Amino acid sequence: MKRRDILKGSLAAGALALLPKGGAQGAPQNVPSLGRRYRNLIVFVYDGFSWEDYAIAQAYARRRLGRALALERLLARYPNGLMNTYSLTSYVTESSAAGNAMSCGVKTVNGGLAVHADGTPLKPFFAAAKEMGKAVGLVTTTTVTHATPASFVVSNPDRNAEAQIAEQYLAFGAEVYLGGGDRFFNPERRQDKKDMYAAFAQAGYGVVKTPEELARSNASKLLGVFSDSHVPYEVDRRFQGLRVPSLKEMVQAALPRLAAHRNGFVLQVEAGRIDHSNHLNDPAATLWDVLAADEALEALTAFVDRNPDTLLLLAADHATGVGALYGAGRSYLESSVGIDLLEGQKASFEHMRRVLGANPDAGQVKEAYRAMKGVALSDEEAQMVVEAITKRVYLPDSVRYGIQPDNTMSWAMVQKNAQKPERPNIGWSSGQHTASPVMLVLYGQGLRFLNLGLVDNTHVFRLMGEALGIRYQNPVMSEEEALEILKSRPVGMRHPEDVWA
Amino acid sequence: MKRRDILKGSLAAGALALLPKGGAQGAPQNVPSLGRRYRNLIVFVYDGFSWEDYAIAQAYARRRLGRALALERLLARYPNGLMNTYSLTSYVTESSAAGNAMSCGVKTVNGGLAVHADGTPLKPFFAAAKEMGKAVGLVTTTTVTHATPASFVVSNPDRNAEAQIAEQYLAFGAEVYLGGGDRFFNPERRQDKKDMYAAFAQAGYGVVKTPEELARSNASKLLGVFSDSHVPYEVDRRFQGLRVPSLKEMVQAALPRLAAHRNGFVLQVEAGRIDHSNHLNDPAATLWDVLAADEALEALTAFVDRNPDTLLLLAADHATGVGALYGAGRSYLESSVGIDLLEGQKASFEHMRRVLGANPDAGQVKEAYRAMKGVALSDEEAQMVVEAITKRVYLPDSVRYGIQPDNTMSWAMVQKNAQKPERPNIGWSSGQHTASPVMLVLYGQGLRFLNLGLVDNTHVFRLMGEALGIRYQNPVMSEEEALEILKSRPVGMRHPEDVWA
Repeated sequence: MKRRDILKGSLAAGALALLPKGGAQGAPQNVPSLGRRYRNLIVFVYDGFSWEDYAIAQAYARRRLGRALALERLLARYPNGLMNTYSLTSYVTESSAAGNAMSCGVKTVNGGLAVHADGTPLKPFFAAAKEMGKAVGLVTTTTVTHATPASFVVSNPDRNAEAQIAEQYLAFGAEVYLGGGDRFFNPERRQDKKDMYAAFAQAGYGVVKTPEELARSNASKLLGVFSDSHVPYEVDRRFQGLRVPSLKEMVQAALPRLAAHRNGFVLQVEAGRIDHSNHLNDPAATLWDVLAADEALEALTAFVDRNPDTLLLLAADHATGVGALYGAGRSYLESSVGIDLLEGQKASFEHMRRVLGANPDAGQVKEAYRAMKGVALSDEEAQMVVEAITKRVYLPDSVRYGIQPDNTMSWAMVQKNAQKPERPNIGWSSGQHTASPVMLVLYGQGLRFLNLGLVDNTHVFRLMGEALGIRYQNPVMSEEEALEILKSRPVGMRHPEDVWA
Repeated sequence: MKRRDILKGSLAAGALALLPKGGAQGAPQNVPSLGRRYRNLIVFVYDGFSWEDYAIAQAYARRRLGRALALERLLARYPNGLMNTYSLTSYVTESSAAGNAMSCGVKTVNGGLAVHADGTPLKPFFAAAKEMGKAVGLVTTTTVTHATPASFVVSNPDRNAEAQIAEQYLAFGAEVYLGGGDRFFNPERRQDKKDMYAAFAQAGYGVVKTPEELARSNASKLLGVFSDSHVPYEVDRRFQGLRVPSLKEMVQAALPRLAAHRNGFVLQVEAGRIDHSNHLNDPAATLWDVLAADEALEALTAFVDRNPDTLLLLAADHATGVGALYGAGRSYLESSVGIDLLEGQKASFEHMRRVLGANPDAGQVKEAYRAMKGVALSDEEAQMVVEAITKRVYLPDSVRYGIQPDNTMSWAMVQKNAQKPERPNIGWSSGQHTASPVMLVLYGQGLRFLNLGLVDNTHVFRLMGEALGIRYQNPVMSEEEALEILKSRPVGMRHPEDVWA
């Protein structure tokens, strides 16, 4: 990348991306300023969270739980706005480019962590915060080495190189890492047989793998890895008895350890599997992961209330699937029934597939849907699921609905009663990420009259910098340069059919 | 309705609707205040407009038109927030209940105009404005008697009684009515053979039916009816030569007439067919109606700039369909192609159906898609369209995708190339309204630091009242009372399969 790109950078980043060259009117940038500094910064990312997800969770909390979401209270009363999420060359981002935009303040090509397409590394914000003495924590429901947390601390051209990212984490030396991903730490699971648990323990980390160990540990530095891959969904933790900590429990383990540092801290919390359940078109898994995020949010706002020198920044990185409660019945008068019907859904498709195994018959499928989704499938629908699992026959198609067999498992239970829903009247536009602007909310003392408006996701970097008094500029790549690089070599991870983005 | 309901009303409206009884924590209400008064009020409603629609239009304007939307500039720089849209008993609203919430400040049951389910009439805001001497205007791309404009001026238990609403309009006596709906004014089309055109002319209105008549008229009061039913989509006006005024031309006819009144005015402008094209899952029709709305918005903001005593309130009434640009290609790197491919779409499904007639063959269908949608259908896809039009065979189903045969016509051209889209990679969650919160934006002098946050749609009534200094309270019905009434009698219009809501 040439120096001139760096120089012309600060204006080009974000605002002008995707604008044709020559005579184009620049998009208006809103550059809201906090107007004050903070000692601690908490960034809470809802991965793959759309406004339709919000509406469903808001309604479920009100109708079935008799309360308002903590998120509803924040949206109503504290500064919030919308963020554009597109990456450097694609109007639909994936999570690493979205993470980079927030963490590094510049647009990148989809697929790499804190790095440009030509290999130019970027400095992630939490690395800069560590340099100035802040303690660092990462808490997530995905593998702890996944794109959204990783993009805040390390640089790697391949977001899927999670075994390597585990080593980068050790070298980075954050105070708290909590999430999933045993396969990237366990010597029996890693290709290179390295024992990353032993290496972290040697570096002074308490290493914990169960909720009990997490609760008992008094280590000041913590590596918690609670599952082989991603941490199971909240719906399965809550109703199927899977023994992992909740997101709130992880947050509650992280906060006192980080708060003990006299120079303050930065913490990223990620409700990472909202994205996954939306990829799968799994309404109950999304709902309960949003509700679990809300409990974590309660804990975080309570911490901010007790520690007013803390800024909480809440953001979605992009929307996924856009599962929408749609109008049902005459004059849409039966629409709310779909909210109530979610109460009968007690497991994720992920868990159902584990239970069903590789060769279920139609009877087993029907029983699983009855017990875990509260839905009575027809013979035809059950057969659709059997063929998706056993023969890779996918419906309605495997492009738009590319996360299979799960998207077919969702399709099988679509609501078919036009008068009164007997299944949740929720539909998905696809099994992929989408382009809509997403939420940005700030919570902290002295913020009441901040007008966020519509900002670019790169503006998160500037808000974080202002909060902690950290100022630097990562090199900017132009869209044209990136497109030129993309022409000459294949890039990108496997197709989202195989890997969630 | 009992007096006590009116008394307990102001707290119950909106905030508590859909909360279970007893011990429920009230939802937090944000009650932002303008802090100043205005002489004129313009309410611009984007009917059925989702954040996914916004993202696609923003990208199309930047990539293909080389400019930023006026709406993007407003969202970036002026106070904006989100609105909850649910109606009194349904988490998914239709347009009359959404219109009532804004116009009357209270939640109602889906289906009636400025009226409760027990027949209690409500006073619409524009009726109150007229009482205090404001001139009134309604400009829309739907039938001028449609739910969203009508809910601001008249009360009627049946939103579909448009022939009767035309008579109510005459009695109401607004200064400007512009839109579609000849069938409700023309004596040859009305069942009762009344000549509403003659009646309006006798009451002093200039009556115009073409763009030329609209441009030539120098009448101070105006009834413009430009089509049999709804005004054709912008995409058909622009590329298929349909001879109707654009929304901007209607706005430009309305503004000087209203501004001539010395007591100021209230004007509702509706981009009403964004909702319809979203019901149909018609991406180009939605795009161009959003772009046409943006041109009208430019004209409106220019008026506000010249007349700083004017408040412009911009709102969506609900989302519809949620047609989302979804990630395509490896690492989603091909996603933006779908935006560019929209350039080849030059007609709506509505127009295509007119051209194809009732008995098209597969060859005619292929040619129509090629010429008007820029898409080469396969034989199988063309046959799907033939059977939908000629035999009412609908895919994928007629509940979620209930607007037929159009939803099948959309389904036929779904993107099927996983590597690189050859058709727009846009998918719909359904053909119905959805539950997500929608946009609310204010534009006017002295508003820079207003924090709108998340509000209820009933708050629009309070903002309008504050703007013009009009204070009154419509009677409130409880959700319980409404549910009791709904039990005892059938209500609602025809199923949304037959009538767009």
